[in-house]
Order: sequence, then C-alpha cells, then structure tokens
Amino acid sequence: MSATVHRLGGKHAPSLDPMMALVAPDMNLVNTIILDRMQSDIPLIPELAGHLIAGGGKRMRPMLTLASAKLLGYAGNRHHRLAAAVEFLHTATLLHDDVVDSSDLRRGRRTANIIWGNPASVLVGDFLFSRSFELMVEDGSVKVLKILANASAVIAEGEVNQLTAVRRIDLGEERYLDIIDAKTASLFAAACRIAAVVAERPEAEEVALDAYGRNLGIAFQLVDDALDYVSDAGTMGKEAGDDFREGKMTLPVILARSRGDADARAFWKDAMEGRRNQDSDLAEAIDRVRATRAVDDTLARARHYGQRAIDALGMFTDGAARQAMVEAVEFAVARAY
Amino acid sequence: MSATVHRLGGKHAPSLDPMMALVAPDMNLVNTIILDRMQSDIPLIPELAGHLIAGGGKRMRPMLTLASAKLLGYAGNRHHRLAAAVEFLHTATLLHDDVVDSSDLRRGRRTANIIWGNPASVLVGDFLFSRSFELMVEDGSVKVLKILANASAVIAEGEVNQLTAVRRIDLGEERYLDIIDAKTASLFAAACRIAAVVAERPEAEEVALDAYGRNLGIAFQLVDDALDYVSDAGTMGKEAGDDFREGKMTLPVILARSRGDADARAFWKDAMEGRRNQDSDLAEAIDRVRATRAVDDTLARARHYGQRAIDALGMFTDGAARQAMVEAVEFAVARAY
Repeated sequence: MSATVHRLGGKHAPSLDPMMALVAPDMNLVNTIILDRMQSDIPLIPELAGHLIAGGGKRMRPMLTLASAKLLGYAGNRHHRLAAAVEFLHTATLLHDDVVDSSDLRRGRRTANIIWGNPASVLVGDFLFSRSFELMVEDGSVKVLKILANASAVIAEGEVNQLTAVRRIDLGEERYLDIIDAKTASLFAAACRIAAVVAERPEAEEVALDAYGRNLGIAFQLVDDALDYVSDAGTMGKEAGDDFREGKMTLPVILARSRGDADARAFWKDAMEGRRNQDSDLAEAIDRVRATRAVDDTLARARHYGQRAIDALGMFTDGAARQAMVEAVEFAVARAY
Repeated sequence: MSATVHRLGGKHAPSLDPMMALVAPDMNLVNTIILDRMQSDIPLIPELAGHLIAGGGKRMRPMLTLASAKLLGYAGNRHHRLAAAVEFLHTATLLHDDVVDSSDLRRGRRTANIIWGNPASVLVGDFLFSRSFELMVEDGSVKVLKILANASAVIAEGEVNQLTAVRRIDLGEERYLDIIDAKTASLFAAACRIAAVVAERPEAEEVALDAYGRNLGIAFQLVDDALDYVSDAGTMGKEAGDDFREGKMTLPVILARSRGDADARAFWKDAMEGRRNQDSDLAEAIDRVRATRAVDDTLARARHYGQRAIDALGMFTDGAARQAMVEAVEFAVARAY
C-alpha cells in the first residue's frame, strides 16, 4: 500500500536502529560466517582483515540483504552466506581504495595500508575478493553469481573512472553520477536484489529492490560527498576535507564551480589540481561551497534519490521491514543535519 | 599406454611449439574473447590491460586448458571462455604482483605500474579479476566455478604467505614449496582440471590433470627461481637478480645457506635483509649458489616434479596432445640449459 510509504522530511529524528533491530539475529549469523571465513593459516590475513571488519563499520550492505529478505518474508538461510559475501566484496574494495587514495584514516582509525603497508592491503584485498566469490559459489545460484560478479566488475570500472577523473576540473554532474552509481550504488543495488532471487520472487520485485538499493546508494554517496565540505563532520569518522585535498571532483565542487565567476573557477582549478591544499584553502573552499548553496543542493539531490528509493518500496506490503527500510533512507539523507 | 610416456632427459631440444601448434585455432578464439572482454567505456582499462596482455606472454595457462581439452577429445567450445577467464585471473595477479614487488620490468618491458602508476594497476587488476569471474559465471558450471574460485583464494593466500616470508632468512624448503604450490601451481592445476570438468570425464581424470598442472607449475617456478641466479638469464625477459635484490627466499638461497658455513649464513642474512644488494653482492651470491650446487639441485628438484607431471599423464591415450604436453614439461625444465 504505497499510501503508507513515508515522505522524506518527517519530524522525528530518523535512525538505523529499526533496521538493525529487524535483522539483529540474522546479522549475528552473518558475523559468525564473516569471522569464520576470514580465517587463514597465514596469520597476517585475519589480522589485517579483522582490523577493518571489526573496525566499527555499520555493515550497511549485508544489512540491506537481510532487511530485503525480511521484507519478502524469506524463511531460508541462504542470504546469510550471501550477505557475508557482499561484506567481503565491500571490504576488499575499501582495502584497495585506501591504497589508491593513500588514505591514512578510515572511520577514525589508522588504515590497514598505514599499519601493514600497501602490498599487504592489496593482497589481503585480493584474498577477500576470492573468498567472497567462494561464498557465492557455495550458494550455487548462477543468477545470484551473475548479479554479484557483474556488480564487482562495475565497481572496479567505476573506481578506474573515478581515478581518471581526479583533478579533472571539467568533470560534469553526469559523469560524476555515473561514477557514484558504479562505485557505490551498484553494490547497494545488488545487495538488495539478491534477496529477491533467493526468495524466488518475481522479476518485478527484483527490479524494485535493485532500484531501492541503487537510489539509496546514490543518496548515501551524495551525502558523504557533501559532508566533506561541512566543517564539523567529525561524527562520520572521516576527516572533512579529504576529498578536497585529494582533488576529487565531487558534486559540491562541480556545483560551486559552475555557479561561480572567473575568480571562483580559478580557485577551484588551482585547488583540484593540487596547488591549494592547505587548511586555509579548505576553509575558503567551504565558504565558496556555502555561498553558492552547493552543499545544500547536493543534499537536495540526495533527497531526490532518497525519495525514489522510498517509492521503489511501494509495491511491498507495509510492516516493520518496509518501515525500517524507509527510515534507513531518511537516516541516510538526514546525516548532514 | 604409460610405456610410451617420455622420460625426462631425451636428446632433442624440447620446445613449446608442438603444444602451440596443437591449440593454435582454439587459441585464436581465446584471444578474440580476451580482446573483446577487456574492453570498457573507461579507456584506461583496455589501454593498461592491453599493455600486459599483448606484452608477449606465452599464454601458458590458457594453453594448458586447451591442450587438456584436446587430450580428452573434447569437441565443445566452453573451454574457450574458461581459458580466457584463466588468463584474466593470471593477468590480474601479475598487475598486483608488480605493485607489491615495486617491479619496473616484466618480460623486458616497463611494467604497468611504472607507466600508469600503482593506483591504476590495482584497480585494473580488480576489474580483470571481476571480468574473469563474469566469464566463469557465463559458463554456468558450479563445479568449474568452485575450482577456479578456490584457486583464486589459494593464490592470494600464497601471495600473502610469500609477502610475510620476504627477508625471513629462516624460511625452510617446506614453507617455500607451500608458497609456490599456492601462488603458481594452483592455477596451473585448475587450468588443466577444468578441461576434464567441461569434457565430463571421470573424477580420476580430473585428478590426473590437476596433478599434471600442479607438478608442471612447481617445476616451472623452481626453474624461474633458479634462473634468477644464472647470470646470462636475459632470454627469459626477466632481470637476473630481481629476487635477490627483493630479498625473496627462493630455493637456491635456502639450499646455499643451509649448505654453507657461518660466513655463508652471515652473507645470506645480510643479503636477504637488504644490506647487500649491489651488483658485486649479486655476483658473490651467484658464486656462492654455484659453489654449493644450489642452482643445480634446484633444477634437480624441478626435474623431479616435471617427471611427476609426465607420469600423471600415464592414464591418457598416447597421441599428439599427450606428446605435446610431455614436451611442454621437458621444455619447462630444460630452460636453464
């Protein structure tokens, strides 16, 4: 009953708690699989993987698989292993991302590449990729495998696309959206979609869950990118200004630049090409982003995708699962306030 | 008829040519798939992947899949896509290896990480990994997927094992063999084994082809490791002394050290821990390896595994395919002469 689907902008403070509560018993089983399958006779593997896996992530992607399965009333247990596979795929990507970006902090902790070095992060990432595929293969559904193998290729393509876009001052909103669709939203989409496959639901429900995950993923990434230009973003466990210093062309920059005058264009060109990366430059960037309403409008874009995610759930029966999934979207887009 | 299986050490100069001729039409089809599936809308991907894929490799692993299929009289075409998947998996590993080892030359050409940087090599490697799995999933055999996903995890584990063994002067022959079994031989084994799966042959033939590939892979790696201490090894397109300078504990070092006196142990400790890595040190290392017959005996070990590979073929009908596979082993172990 789509009439009961929330609209964004209600008065309560939205939270992930309902979704976490909904899937808590399942998530315990997923965590058991994760801990079990990151083991190896080579001690460095569980040590390094454990640093990231135990490092306080929200397990957003496996949570989406579990919540989607609840939404569909799925009573089996195949989704536990697949949710672990999704988390491994994500963890592998994070390990490689930190190498690619030369990051030193993630979720407020030192990154694995800083502690153990780039070679170890690359290779343990490869191990987790492989383990992820092993878990999928154990499930045995070629349809699930196709969805996840394709998502994995699309993610890697998106990462390369982003790499070649770094410091490219002429990047437009369309290509930026292509990048975040590939590198972030495609795994959110796949995580939700596979629940419909294991629950043997009709194609239309697969497509709806894909749309929910994809739009939520885009909204999520847009808010992340906006928060990089909000000076008190300490709560997200990521340092404000990371994207700025790395010359990442995110939507706040694209909007601030396209709405600015010649002086603004010169500033952003210098900044993205690495010639203005001091704290005072970041402060100026935040001022410029604020003056052009570029953060506000990045967040408005996020709400657009968030609303689409919520509306994609319209075909499903209302209840605790759907309400939790709606509130997860509200939480994702409300993080900036 | 096992009586006709060659014994190592015949008089002719063994060559890969018979195997190449045997699979030439199939390999053309595999090359078409490889070129087609390394394409992407992101131009950096085919550019970087093409550098390595067109870079003069022997396509040893896909060739083994094709030759094994010939050996079994397989008349279908599933093995073409799987052979391409095997090559992609191998290429992804090479890209990451070069990042891990900070290599600057491979097969006599500049490595991708030197030309395009480590981030691009890591991410394009991830893309090829994912494409490899997509190709396997398209084949649709869960049994093949299990074999290749497992090989992929074992390779990554072997790479991490090797990484933690670098500069570990106390590494013994057993752990060294575990490492090369995992990082090299497991993919050779899987490449051969999957031919028996697609040809729907009995388990015993799968096991025999696995053994052929695994023992050939170990022999291959042992000879590679020996050649690093042969000063005129220019023909292999790899620089002699690479392993020495990187502090890799390979069998020639393990043998030379364990057979040496206190002075030798001190030399190898200094060398492997990076305090003696000049050309004059390499010359001394080669002398020490020669004086202890460490290269000769590494090659003797290679011949042992090569003979096991050849004997694993005993159950198959003699003919052009089996003879080509035997000669490939002879070629692998004869490269040092």
